[in-house]
Amino acid sequence: MNGQKGVGVVETRTVRLFDAESPLHLVRGGTLSQVDVAYETYGTLSPQGDNAVFICHALTGDAHVAGYHEGARRPGWWDNMIGPGRPLDTDRLYVICANLLGGCQGTTGPSSIDPATGHAYGLDFPLLDMGDFVTVHRALCHHLGVDTLLAAFGGSLGGMQVLEWALTHPEDMRNAVVIAASSRLSAQNIAFNAVAREAITRDPGFRDGQYEAAGTVPDHGLSIARMMAHITYLSEESMADKFGRMPQDAELAPGFGADFAVESYLRHQGETFLERFDALSYLYLTRVMDYYDPFERPGITEAAAAQGVRFLVASFTSDWRFSSTHSRRIVRHLEQARIPVSYRDIETAGGHDSFLLEIEPYHETIRAYIDNALEALR
Amino acid sequence: MNGQKGVGVVETRTVRLFDAESPLHLVRGGTLSQVDVAYETYGTLSPQGDNAVFICHALTGDAHVAGYHEGARRPGWWDNMIGPGRPLDTDRLYVICANLLGGCQGTTGPSSIDPATGHAYGLDFPLLDMGDFVTVHRALCHHLGVDTLLAAFGGSLGGMQVLEWALTHPEDMRNAVVIAASSRLSAQNIAFNAVAREAITRDPGFRDGQYEAAGTVPDHGLSIARMMAHITYLSEESMADKFGRMPQDAELAPGFGADFAVESYLRHQGETFLERFDALSYLYLTRVMDYYDPFERPGITEAAAAQGVRFLVASFTSDWRFSSTHSRRIVRHLEQARIPVSYRDIETAGGHDSFLLEIEPYHETIRAYIDNALEALR
Repeated sequence: MNGQKGVGVVETRTVRLFDAESPLHLVRGGTLSQVDVAYETYGTLSPQGDNAVFICHALTGDAHVAGYHEGARRPGWWDNMIGPGRPLDTDRLYVICANLLGGCQGTTGPSSIDPATGHAYGLDFPLLDMGDFVTVHRALCHHLGVDTLLAAFGGSLGGMQVLEWALTHPEDMRNAVVIAASSRLSAQNIAFNAVAREAITRDPGFRDGQYEAAGTVPDHGLSIARMMAHITYLSEESMADKFGRMPQDAELAPGFGADFAVESYLRHQGETFLERFDALSYLYLTRVMDYYDPFERPGITEAAAAQGVRFLVASFTSDWRFSSTHSRRIVRHLEQARIPVSYRDIETAGGHDSFLLEIEPYHETIRAYIDNALEALR
Repeated sequence: MNGQKGVGVVETRTVRLFDAESPLHLVRGGTLSQVDVAYETYGTLSPQGDNAVFICHALTGDAHVAGYHEGARRPGWWDNMIGPGRPLDTDRLYVICANLLGGCQGTTGPSSIDPATGHAYGLDFPLLDMGDFVTVHRALCHHLGVDTLLAAFGGSLGGMQVLEWALTHPEDMRNAVVIAASSRLSAQNIAFNAVAREAITRDPGFRDGQYEAAGTVPDHGLSIARMMAHITYLSEESMADKFGRMPQDAELAPGFGADFAVESYLRHQGETFLERFDALSYLYLTRVMDYYDPFERPGITEAAAAQGVRFLVASFTSDWRFSSTHSRRIVRHLEQARIPVSYRDIETAGGHDSFLLEIEPYHETIRAYIDNALEALR
């Protein structure tokens, strides 16, 4: 992996950023009187405080973006991108990643305990907006002593958050890198999210979101949601290359089990997802994506244009979850507002999940972009 | 609709084609000692018996392809194609359509009563093969006094059945029309089928397929399966045109209901499907599709080449369930075997379900093809 060692052993920390005296006011109304945020950092903040990079994670990501947790066999989800000598070089950059508000990996979300009741929020958790994600992560930056980010990076939902952050608080960053993202979900995108939510909420174990109290789990629904979503993260070509029509076990009598390798793979994806993700978080976070549409807001690009924040937008030719059309729409809006933007449509068969893969022209694009950004500081 | 009246009021008839004395022997082994078949016919068989057309239906279709059942508000599923003056002109043709073996609309399937036990078969129903569909529909033709079809038509799974029928019994037909079909599901195709089956079998109401006896129904699972599949039947473009990001009810507070019109539509699709389809049939019929791969069988094209059966293969440019690539593969195999084949890739935004729509160049292609076929009889 880039022929370099990674960031080594790391751990996730948690900090309370909002409390009863200083509650979080949400975009759609309502407040949260207790918000904890899980985060990791790698590298060192420069004395000038100008080398910080914030990573915004995707729907089911978390704060553990690089390195290894003590005793773990697998590194963080974007370890190929972050570390000494890697495109986001931790010898030169201070990298921050935090779990999203509404998530389930350390940051307050709908399955957290509501301090007012002593029980999990469930569906009493307030509806969230992309702007709430930004508010919470801005607060983390201030807590860490970071006033201005060299760049914010994000893929998929993470890219959507970067877009929101750069448009509404362009003074927070010099560069915004938006990868495999969308400014506006299509009807088909919403449809896939909707079916995933139906699978979860119709699971008898869901109990109107009070499953923690009921001692049940909507595992079947959450697995189905994940399996279906996973199909949309891969391209038809990459699935064909990886699995084709290969039987899972030639000895197996045909039936309704995992007869084909692709079925076995999907089942495994569905199962392992249960260990790390929460059904309510899936509902809340997908709904934020559905409603997001920043360019509908009049004047939304004015602040970023005035501030001069620079954008890199990247898409992947085989991504059909958020096809290049989505990225081109973002580029068009930015260009119309005279915001400086570079666009790369990267040729690859990997589908939507390409943003996680070590694809040379992609990594070289990121490397060159951040090198230039560092250069521009001098 | 083509400015013509349709076939009028029709009814579905049922006939027992296999029984204990003459059981149905299945391709994968096993027998069924009682097979009833539901079918409809329109028009009149010519004295020469040479004007019969067989319609093979898709996964969730049925025998009711044209006209109106007594008191019904909606016609059969391909009414725009079949009737006096329509492309399949019932003033000149004798049109037959029958429900598939393994189905749930009158033909024997896994939720039928097993005469040996007096209970529904459930998962004791034997696994089926595309060849079994053909065997049963051939028997129906013989029952109706039809020796040679002028043509067999089918879209999607129906097209796959036509392909199997024409390759294994080319003496049965002069023409084979294979629309929006595949000779071999891709890993992605199988994956979508697999997730649908998981949704059904993990529904607590499924009870290992004994839901009839248990008095339960796997309705949630079957709805989820249908909603997901329905997304794959439409193109991203047609969903955008039809629904975009339109809210279902502007008064509605955002939440986890059917906030967007596309969500409401999908829920409706999922609900109405329950009235007409059976979960076990969904398992059995999708599995037949998964395993189908006729061109893997050595010499499979020889009989059709010797017989001179002619093929029309048609695909739709926006179909991503069975893209044009699938149809081109069929054409390539037929051409390599020197079987006469015409191919049309029809430009339309309607996605996979285009085969059901009244699209002018598509209907004109069918009309011209069948006119030529009739002409060739003279």
